[in-house]
Amino acid sequence: MCGMTAKSQARWTEDALTALRVGRGFRLENLDPASTPGYGGGKKDGEKDLAAGLDQLAEYQERLYAASRGGTARDSVLLVLQAMDSAGKGGIVRHVVGGVDPQGIQLAAFKAPTEDELAHDFLWRIEKRVPGPGLIGVFDRSHYEDVLIGRVRGLAEPEEIERRYGAIVDFERRLTESGTRIIKVMLHISPQEQGKRLLDRLERPDKHWKYNPGDVDERSQWPAYMAAYETVLRRTSTDDAPWFVVPADRKWYARLAVQELLLETLEQIDPQWPVASFDVDAEKARLTATL
Amino acid sequence: MCGMTAKSQARWTEDALTALRVGRGFRLENLDPASTPGYGGGKKDGEKDLAAGLDQLAEYQERLYAASRGGTARDSVLLVLQAMDSAGKGGIVRHVVGGVDPQGIQLAAFKAPTEDELAHDFLWRIEKRVPGPGLIGVFDRSHYEDVLIGRVRGLAEPEEIERRYGAIVDFERRLTESGTRIIKVMLHISPQEQGKRLLDRLERPDKHWKYNPGDVDERSQWPAYMAAYETVLRRTSTDDAPWFVVPADRKWYARLAVQELLLETLEQIDPQWPVASFDVDAEKARLTATL
Repeated sequence: MCGMTAKSQARWTEDALTALRVGRGFRLENLDPASTPGYGGGKKDGEKDLAAGLDQLAEYQERLYAASRGGTARDSVLLVLQAMDSAGKGGIVRHVVGGVDPQGIQLAAFKAPTEDELAHDFLWRIEKRVPGPGLIGVFDRSHYEDVLIGRVRGLAEPEEIERRYGAIVDFERRLTESGTRIIKVMLHISPQEQGKRLLDRLERPDKHWKYNPGDVDERSQWPAYMAAYETVLRRTSTDDAPWFVVPADRKWYARLAVQELLLETLEQIDPQWPVASFDVDAEKARLTATL
Repeated sequence: MCGMTAKSQARWTEDALTALRVGRGFRLENLDPASTPGYGGGKKDGEKDLAAGLDQLAEYQERLYAASRGGTARDSVLLVLQAMDSAGKGGIVRHVVGGVDPQGIQLAAFKAPTEDELAHDFLWRIEKRVPGPGLIGVFDRSHYEDVLIGRVRGLAEPEEIERRYGAIVDFERRLTESGTRIIKVMLHISPQEQGKRLLDRLERPDKHWKYNPGDVDERSQWPAYMAAYETVLRRTSTDDAPWFVVPADRKWYARLAVQELLLETLEQIDPQWPVASFDVDAEKARLTATL
């Protein structure tokens, strides 16, 4: 890539793909939501690196898209975002994904399922939103809701929840085999920080629309949610589709880290401009004749 | 809107909604594709104003979205982009639409219709991509292809083409009545400028994927396309859904002008932050008890 160094952000002391990956024996309680693993800089550095990374990401995205159009490349990327309310999913979409050409992004926000969706298997609505070749798909919430809120609120029988972990692993393996790199991110916020952010929404009339009284009820289920997340991380973090837990009390870090996960993944794919399928000189001659 | 003046870009000497609107007796040949109607500045001013406008557009979009979530507002915006190849639709999507939160954008790129789509009325696939309340929809090509390339290449009988003008006017009136502001933009490029841009694609290996030998064949049909556009402008520019012809030989102007059309339309809608549907003080108390 023109003028792009292999390791773009020198302030990363370790690959984000390594530093944030969920390994064996991982426990949420051992990861400080205010920490900045793998990154040696502070907030100002982080904001500068985020801005620099936007251009890199935009160029990688264009190459990924071009490679799928012109040639035989079938690669795509799928970023899955899961988090407790107010952890910053929206900010990631706005400030990380938003820097990329909208034509290359396929964004899917999953709300509570409709009656029609509930009548099908839980992966039915997910399959329809999987990114095609050349695209960066972003799931704002996902099939993981069906084993998170699904478990905490008892929306399905325990045996059904149990079945779903295996179904998810199979599903994601199939996506991977057809060329999709899956990056699963849990934004890890502390309940204290969430409380502050929800209170801020209540203080500002231009934020009231983002507040839902149900958010306070969900807060009371915090330990149950953390237990559900830990089961998810243990049962579904695979080599095909690993989980990354991103500390999210510092918004600048969470955004930078997700951007870095995307950049490193695209660096691995290393998409190439496709070679012309037509005779370039002949086309130049035909075109010049019309000028 | 906090800190936003009514007329954001002082260098606009006239509203873009007025300066670019197709009126009676409009002829494409009378509009210079290199002109900059309504705007008093040059390229550097234009780039500065485009950057300033991004923040305004982002705030308007958030208000539009919020208003539809919290209250009874049903407003949406639909930007329809039509143009000859290489006129800059992609750049508009990247540099104008791309500055807005992806969560508030619904982008639909219409390619040649599939067999399934051809088996239905031409508006069938269009209806499915109409933006819902609070969203800014963007059509990269649209139902107008069915009376443009459809007419030039004779893809449908003349009587069917004739029928479609009326069907389009009815369809767009219905959208408008349900709360959608439709902004229809034809990017107006000269054949000379198109030739230069296509040649540039051939000169640069990283642009080859954007080149299609069919583009040269289409160029030979230029007068037929202009005639088809003029019929479209005459038959379908209504008070509900007017057409705007944007000179597009200068990319900076075309982007700025489309941004300004969006800004002025959103200014007319003037979306408001919704009023909380819950008791703010009671929620503060409930939340504070959990901190």
